[in-house]
Amino acid sequence: MNGAQAVIRTLVGGGVDVCFANPGTSEMHFVAALDDVPEMRAVLTLFEGVATGAADGYARMTGRPAATLLHLGPGLGNGVANLHNAHRARTPLVNVVGDHALGHKRLDAPLESDIDAIAGAVSGWVRRSLTTASVGEDVADAVAAATRAPGSVATLVLPADVSWSEGAAVAPVRPRRPAPTVAAALVEQVAAVLGEKTVLFLGSDAVSADGLLAAAQVAAGTGARLLATRSPARMARGAGVPDVLKLPYAPPQAMAELEGVQHLILVGTPEPVAFFGYPDLPGRLTPPDCTVHVLSLPEEDGVAALRSLAEQVAPDAVPVVAGATRPELPSGALTPRSLAAVVGALLPERAIVVDEALTSGMHLPAATAGAPRHEWLTLTGGAIGQGMPVATGAAVACPDRPVVSLQADGSAMYTLQALWTQAREQLDVTTVICDNGSYAILEHELENVGARSGGERAGRLLDLGGPSLDFVALATGMGVPATRATTAEELAGQFRAALAEPGPHLIDAVLRSAG
Amino acid sequence: MNGAQAVIRTLVGGGVDVCFANPGTSEMHFVAALDDVPEMRAVLTLFEGVATGAADGYARMTGRPAATLLHLGPGLGNGVANLHNAHRARTPLVNVVGDHALGHKRLDAPLESDIDAIAGAVSGWVRRSLTTASVGEDVADAVAAATRAPGSVATLVLPADVSWSEGAAVAPVRPRRPAPTVAAALVEQVAAVLGEKTVLFLGSDAVSADGLLAAAQVAAGTGARLLATRSPARMARGAGVPDVLKLPYAPPQAMAELEGVQHLILVGTPEPVAFFGYPDLPGRLTPPDCTVHVLSLPEEDGVAALRSLAEQVAPDAVPVVAGATRPELPSGALTPRSLAAVVGALLPERAIVVDEALTSGMHLPAATAGAPRHEWLTLTGGAIGQGMPVATGAAVACPDRPVVSLQADGSAMYTLQALWTQAREQLDVTTVICDNGSYAILEHELENVGARSGGERAGRLLDLGGPSLDFVALATGMGVPATRATTAEELAGQFRAALAEPGPHLIDAVLRSAG
Repeated sequence: MNGAQAVIRTLVGGGVDVCFANPGTSEMHFVAALDDVPEMRAVLTLFEGVATGAADGYARMTGRPAATLLHLGPGLGNGVANLHNAHRARTPLVNVVGDHALGHKRLDAPLESDIDAIAGAVSGWVRRSLTTASVGEDVADAVAAATRAPGSVATLVLPADVSWSEGAAVAPVRPRRPAPTVAAALVEQVAAVLGEKTVLFLGSDAVSADGLLAAAQVAAGTGARLLATRSPARMARGAGVPDVLKLPYAPPQAMAELEGVQHLILVGTPEPVAFFGYPDLPGRLTPPDCTVHVLSLPEEDGVAALRSLAEQVAPDAVPVVAGATRPELPSGALTPRSLAAVVGALLPERAIVVDEALTSGMHLPAATAGAPRHEWLTLTGGAIGQGMPVATGAAVACPDRPVVSLQADGSAMYTLQALWTQAREQLDVTTVICDNGSYAILEHELENVGARSGGERAGRLLDLGGPSLDFVALATGMGVPATRATTAEELAGQFRAALAEPGPHLIDAVLRSAG
Repeated sequence: MNGAQAVIRTLVGGGVDVCFANPGTSEMHFVAALDDVPEMRAVLTLFEGVATGAADGYARMTGRPAATLLHLGPGLGNGVANLHNAHRARTPLVNVVGDHALGHKRLDAPLESDIDAIAGAVSGWVRRSLTTASVGEDVADAVAAATRAPGSVATLVLPADVSWSEGAAVAPVRPRRPAPTVAAALVEQVAAVLGEKTVLFLGSDAVSADGLLAAAQVAAGTGARLLATRSPARMARGAGVPDVLKLPYAPPQAMAELEGVQHLILVGTPEPVAFFGYPDLPGRLTPPDCTVHVLSLPEEDGVAALRSLAEQVAPDAVPVVAGATRPELPSGALTPRSLAAVVGALLPERAIVVDEALTSGMHLPAATAGAPRHEWLTLTGGAIGQGMPVATGAAVACPDRPVVSLQADGSAMYTLQALWTQAREQLDVTTVICDNGSYAILEHELENVGARSGGERAGRLLDLGGPSLDFVALATGMGVPATRATTAEELAGQFRAALAEPGPHLIDAVLRSAG
């Protein structure tokens, strides 16, 4: 057995049976070995940022890592932005980066670069496999590292000759350890400070349906308020699930939400900080006199901690959950508000919503709170160009669930190549481009940071017009059927039609700025 | 003056007056300051790989660095592949990466990452600017580092508050030092070994017109042979310039070219090594008994060294140059051979050819050797997705020269967003997509590395069909007029028309594999 075969067999044995791949010469033995191990599904992407983002989306939905296959330092570089997002989302992911043969390294060939330095910036675990005899064990260690709670990007650098040489062996992957439970004493400490001036700040497993229900039971019994982290990796939403506000993006609004809070209880998430620093605004959003408590760290069992807390303080309380109410189908102008209403009115049962709508998405939470039970995946690490790749991976993970990809136009252009993979794999993804023709978020930010705005040359750097992007042509060019909506009625009709038909679709929703 | 204003004014004062930008929140003061310093031209790109590649292309043509403007670690990551290429091409480039405000760093906000680690992998110089008072001097040092011979990627990490705070000052940039000259004793040593079993291996400035003419004079007078490095950053070609063979990509062919050579003289380039390691092939391509001499390092004045050599050994020799001969316009099937003939027959005067045609480009050198004088820019670092961005930057650098971008289909999909910038800036770029519907180079490599090929699952990872990419739709979607050619006649007609009309055009040249 050669190294590549052992790599793939060890992955499959460890439960990693999907690989999002962008191979080059140094990965050709891995590619050839795919024909020996039919249990591994290889999904080709046209750009590494699609591969890494898809692996993130896949794991968010399955809880199991996918592998990637990338080509040396530049291939890894192209994948960095979405690996950063996965790293921040604590997603389990096995990142395989091919490299030159060991003897070729010192020749400083054109593609030679410091892979380890780049990998270190976006990984929780990095190793270079040095012998074919040990490559199976290296892969087993990578899978174990990726799946240790709460999850980690594990990067294995795989030299070409370690792949192509004979003498490899499959290694068993150690069983995944359950997340550690929180000590009872900590639960008791938190129980003592619950009340109306207390906020439970929820992330990681605390925003799963079970986590939210337990937290809402605590809230119902104690008067404590619930807030969710701004960008959870995966959040349960819809009718029957508590509708929990996410901390707003803009620091003044976030600080307003936290005003008067005396105890902030962190459940699976760090203390809230501003996304960016701004002149004359603090970075920490918690009021100065607020005491911060940690109920659970992201790697601990937050759901169990919340349940234990609920049993102690509110054994008979009934959590408040969202009712099954949807907005009316809107008519007239297509605005962020009417777009949200269309999504809320038509979102199908068990949908996976991938949200990179940014400024155009501000009305989505309210409009979808009473839609049928669904999952919401967000941009945890802030590196744009994540939405369409994550939607791709989520659809590979859950072929029986509809994926709705709500995508800002500027961000869409970072990893648009995801559409081609959606077409090739005939994934059931409905992409709605929130097409406002600008980097609207930066128009706000120009003002927020106190930069003098209004200049023509500055404005030109935030404007996506001249020429306008034709997303219908772009999608069609990659094999995804596409339509354009300019009114709320058109969007509703096209959204309904896209959801009704299997396979990928794209709707270019041309937004007016009002609303 | 705030920090951002000082950054831009110092850049402009140092001769850096074009910036390829992909800004985010932390760069908003830089963006605002553009309205204060009209001498700086800011060019918006939709993806960082376009910005970094365009800066590379710009500098290859002007000899002066452009700046980039990137957004934290993920933005830098998106630019890594083309920074790698620029680093390998020894391109002068000032890479400005915005970061969080200094006080915000320790809050571990979502976009926090190890920018310096990533920057180090693709830069010759890295600094984090720490005070507004010193930011002007930091920028001046960056420009000086970028322009020190032969050229370097200089990365300046620019915290948001260093940009927004007042109290900055413009700093003067030290004048560029001329490249050092080679010691006369070294020229004499090389002169002593010239003869028929000697090869002058040429790169950097030695493949400029002056360098090639001096080298060809040496060759004419001594019988030494000339070979050029495989992927020069910029090479002079066409009628009146010596037509020098580039070392072939495949190791067996490269070794055949070097067989029997007793003295290899390096002029501005390292010793030739295989692009990748292969089982049972050496990485070093030079014959074992060949003595390697270094006439000039890339940072030294290779042209002066070659002229000095020519004066010593061949003062009256006449260099052999390419005559003005073009292929006939071909007819019939569109193949790599007929595509090359069309380009050779119609290439305009003073064209800049950007070559990322890969396997489809094999016939281009012979077909274009006798075309009017032109420049040839190649993929120096091997990270695909460079061609269209480099073409974009070259067109910004030389608005009065036609740019011909010969682009493989698979590689085109990495940085296709370059087309939008070409449309916005109305750049005179004619892109020809060499559309063979596959990663053809990898089909060869699968065989070259000895991987068992022929498997269906492996083959599917090298195939760009299912769905086919429609490059006409993709280009149109970004505002670039596009046509499709399926015969040699159609390509000729469309290529001629595209060259005759200003602004960007794209031709999807659908190739049959034969030829």
